[in-house]
Amino acid sequence: MGKQFLEITEKKEVEKIIVDLSTKLAKKIATKTEKVKIEDGEALGRIASAAIFSPLDIPPFDRSTMDGYAVVASDTFYVVENNPSTLIIKGYIQAGEFPSPSQYVETGYCAGISTGAPIPKGANAVVKVENTFEYEDAGAKDAGGRKKIKKVRIYKPVAPAENIMLAGSDIKRGEGIVKSETTLTPRETGVLAACGIKEVFVRKKPTVAIISTGNEIIAPGEDLEPGKIYDVNAQTLSDSVREIGCGCVPLFLGIAGDNTEEVSGKIKESLAKGVDIIILSGGTSAGIGDVLPTAIEEFGEILVHGVDIKPGKPFVLGTVREKPVPVFGLPGNPTSALITFNLFVVPLLRAISGIHLYKNEEGREGREGRRRVKAKASLRIFSEPGRNEYVLVKLTKVELPEEDKFFAYPILTGSGAITSLSKADGYIFMEKGKEIIEEGEGVEVDLLTKPFSFRKRKAFTEKKNTF
Amino acid sequence: MGKQFLEITEKKEVEKIIVDLSTKLAKKIATKTEKVKIEDGEALGRIASAAIFSPLDIPPFDRSTMDGYAVVASDTFYVVENNPSTLIIKGYIQAGEFPSPSQYVETGYCAGISTGAPIPKGANAVVKVENTFEYEDAGAKDAGGRKKIKKVRIYKPVAPAENIMLAGSDIKRGEGIVKSETTLTPRETGVLAACGIKEVFVRKKPTVAIISTGNEIIAPGEDLEPGKIYDVNAQTLSDSVREIGCGCVPLFLGIAGDNTEEVSGKIKESLAKGVDIIILSGGTSAGIGDVLPTAIEEFGEILVHGVDIKPGKPFVLGTVREKPVPVFGLPGNPTSALITFNLFVVPLLRAISGIHLYKNEEGREGREGRRRVKAKASLRIFSEPGRNEYVLVKLTKVELPEEDKFFAYPILTGSGAITSLSKADGYIFMEKGKEIIEEGEGVEVDLLTKPFSFRKRKAFTEKKNTF
Repeated sequence: MGKQFLEITEKKEVEKIIVDLSTKLAKKIATKTEKVKIEDGEALGRIASAAIFSPLDIPPFDRSTMDGYAVVASDTFYVVENNPSTLIIKGYIQAGEFPSPSQYVETGYCAGISTGAPIPKGANAVVKVENTFEYEDAGAKDAGGRKKIKKVRIYKPVAPAENIMLAGSDIKRGEGIVKSETTLTPRETGVLAACGIKEVFVRKKPTVAIISTGNEIIAPGEDLEPGKIYDVNAQTLSDSVREIGCGCVPLFLGIAGDNTEEVSGKIKESLAKGVDIIILSGGTSAGIGDVLPTAIEEFGEILVHGVDIKPGKPFVLGTVREKPVPVFGLPGNPTSALITFNLFVVPLLRAISGIHLYKNEEGREGREGRRRVKAKASLRIFSEPGRNEYVLVKLTKVELPEEDKFFAYPILTGSGAITSLSKADGYIFMEKGKEIIEEGEGVEVDLLTKPFSFRKRKAFTEKKNTF
Repeated sequence: MGKQFLEITEKKEVEKIIVDLSTKLAKKIATKTEKVKIEDGEALGRIASAAIFSPLDIPPFDRSTMDGYAVVASDTFYVVENNPSTLIIKGYIQAGEFPSPSQYVETGYCAGISTGAPIPKGANAVVKVENTFEYEDAGAKDAGGRKKIKKVRIYKPVAPAENIMLAGSDIKRGEGIVKSETTLTPRETGVLAACGIKEVFVRKKPTVAIISTGNEIIAPGEDLEPGKIYDVNAQTLSDSVREIGCGCVPLFLGIAGDNTEEVSGKIKESLAKGVDIIILSGGTSAGIGDVLPTAIEEFGEILVHGVDIKPGKPFVLGTVREKPVPVFGLPGNPTSALITFNLFVVPLLRAISGIHLYKNEEGREGREGRRRVKAKASLRIFSEPGRNEYVLVKLTKVELPEEDKFFAYPILTGSGAITSLSKADGYIFMEKGKEIIEEGEGVEVDLLTKPFSFRKRKAFTEKKNTF
């Protein structure tokens, strides 16, 4: 009964619009920053919004890199195995201690030193413990006339600065340690910790408003009145935003009835909360094709109203406010919503996140990149002529020792069924003009979510969970 | 000055010990469960600890899958384009509404119905709106003698149940929807939402105690007294535990002095807190080789005390308490700590996590799997004879149109330097016996962390951040 006034846009055209939109939005998002604590893991995976410089020298002092003896290097010159030099030990310096004046070294003397301990004044090299022999000289007397002086024989010469890591030789005070726009991995957070830095300025996480629409939709946990169904898309889309790992934060703003006033109200609420992106999904398979464009036109402009793909045809894209806030209108069918999310929303979220990724040998992006596996079609698959079609498939592993491939089984329950969502591992793209995939033909499957598992199918014989 | 009494274990033997340990530990960890809310994203990526069954039919009622008219199917039999049947419209049922008795359908009548709306009593099929023509019959009178009766012409026959999704046809009440030990992706959380389920029992996240040791180590943010350095490993290891994505939670328990009492105290504290794994790292390059074994022997047994790898030789592994809690003793050098973490701790965390992964075409694991890229050595690389050596490398992209490869530059600053940590993208394994890698030779680089970026090197000319 809803009017259908779709002016279909080609998929490639939609993708181009999204690239343009992403570029504008990325600039805007890069300007929002906040300060986070490093210690509690908040900085991990975030993007430094400014360059960071070390406030101190690393190491902060001349540091021994060996267990041994801090010496005046020239006292060891020319020593050989059968003609060692002998030095008097002025005490021992442990890591974490600082040398006292009584441990300062001059020619003829040395100080025992452990790895990581500061070099005492006067010493300029460390002899490894393996090249020494320590003993007590019962016959010798020290300056105070006491007996049993500790001495050490040095069997190998050391050059000045040998076995010493000089203050600031690793990182100099004022040296840049993290460049602006670096994604902070455990390596960067470790370097920041080494410099005693506890907090760091990073880009704010982009926020994504999630709104479900439909008169029949109610939130899980509410009483299921006659004629109502529970909202699926709020959960699926929120968790998908979390799962793609771009650091975007979903913000579920509740369910709007299928009318312009309520949908406009939710858009207004999203803007008031300062979100960066708005995703609405329709409660019914008809989508929100009627109501959303009217609502968008109140605040901005419509860019796409219908795409030449199946499922996903009633996809809507617009922007609101002068600084662009993209508004995505996804079909209500859970599977159609998830496919259009993957096709059109994910590339935008990735582009604006500022997280830069390595690519693997095949030139595909790792981790946050596209998740695609090769498989063989297990059945002949037909597509509707003249449509870009996405066919849901379930993957099963082919257990052959020499290969590690999958069979792709098309799922025929239709995009309206919840079970399609739970059964499908991904989808095959059948481009306009490709009407048949033969049984056994190689296909590429874009995964709906990650990870997915191939455990042995268990029967549901276990004891029931109660809710 | 510390004694060295390492009884070196072969790397392969250590890996075998870790596999055994993982198997035992996985069983123990699988028994710990908790209830989490689905709505706030807490269930995403978690592992269902029991099978879940739907408490209701999906859809909960017979539901129209089309906009159109709910009819008695037999009223449409034999109709053709030029000989439609005409039915009286008993009102309209929108999605979210429930049919009133006045909308019940009998032969000769129908009800307008929108997609997702409940089928009224008496109707058993839906005719698509495209195959109808609605009009007002000004001449007709209804039962109450009013004029202008709404009628519709039906141009195509429908079979019983056509365009109706029957109650429970997608998911039946009591049907299993999530199997035990399933990793919950947005697809599963969506299905749970569809069934109105708000909470779910999942495995508890394994907890990993992180303890730094060393007399010279202080926490970032404290005053840097002479002779002290800031702790790096607590941050690097905690963030690495978070980053590998196995759902393990790091718990930093602070810094212990380099003595058995303090280290034992920290192990005792870890056990009291019920952690599943303990990771200690030594404050100095000497590692905690002396103190940790004595401390472990108080509570359990030592399994490994030294491995034939470089760096990482002073690696210690033990277990404490009758139910095995593995205790890893990593070298203090930040890079050595991160390499031994990757080699020995990561496989254990993955094995116990219960998260099962797909493998890509090359049989490598995706996402949480091993992160390895192919590269070419940019220089001749030498290894110490008779040692399994890990050579740190920095990766740079080879900008050739036909390939997407990397050059691996060995990092020569040594494993003690913090800058090694920040410069290295990964490491090359040079197995015992492999002493030279030629310039240009193909190598496989295991990544230290993910993601890593290849942005253009920027000069540090930006305005300074202040801390």
